[in-house]
Amino acid sequence: MRKPQAHIRVDFSESVSIGPGKIGLLEQIERSGSLSAAARELGMSYRRAWLLLSSVNTGFSEPVAVLSVGGVEGGGAQLTKFGKQLVSDYRKFEQQVDDLAQKTFAAVRAGR
Amino acid sequence: MRKPQAHIRVDFSESVSIGPGKIGLLEQIERSGSLSAAARELGMSYRRAWLLLSSVNTGFSEPVAVLSVGGVEGGGAQLTKFGKQLVSDYRKFEQQVDDLAQKTFAAVRAGR
Repeated sequence: MRKPQAHIRVDFSESVSIGPGKIGLLEQIERSGSLSAAARELGMSYRRAWLLLSSVNTGFSEPVAVLSVGGVEGGGAQLTKFGKQLVSDYRKFEQQVDDLAQKTFAAVRAGR
Repeated sequence: MRKPQAHIRVDFSESVSIGPGKIGLLEQIERSGSLSAAARELGMSYRRAWLLLSSVNTGFSEPVAVLSVGGVEGGGAQLTKFGKQLVSDYRKFEQQVDDLAQKTFAAVRAGR
């Protein structure tokens, strides 16, 4: 029996939203310390990773990550305090939504 | 200041999920008593409405709606008790997720 699985996206404006893709990228940046390494580890093109990061990085009242220039790898990347908080808030939210989905749809069964 | 807006989808299996589109269609069927009228009122093709309904109607352990044959309009449509409960559970879930999003992201601001 598969559990119901909730998928979420949170829009903050017309142009900025977060969901599992962007949050996963931010977490990987935090682990890798580099955008190009994060992209590679997620099997994502550098261009796509850059665009995703750019959309969240310019869409909020403050940056979520800072990039440092230099080196063959294109420099390092680090989450700001705000970025770390956003990731942690999102993961907490996701867990609570999942708990709520299990509770709400406990009696609903897929299949015939 | 725009509020954060949560968008959700709940997957129950590989082949059955619910989100605002399908739930909105079920609600419109309940109001209209007919799939073709519901489709028209939502500005959706009959074919699309039929496919959406069909995916939820066959994807759960019991039907969400029953169609009755006949007439120029292609007959009537009514939600089952299970269908009504699913719609009501989803809307309650959606409201709780929205409350949680407001609470979680109260300090997060879009824009520069």
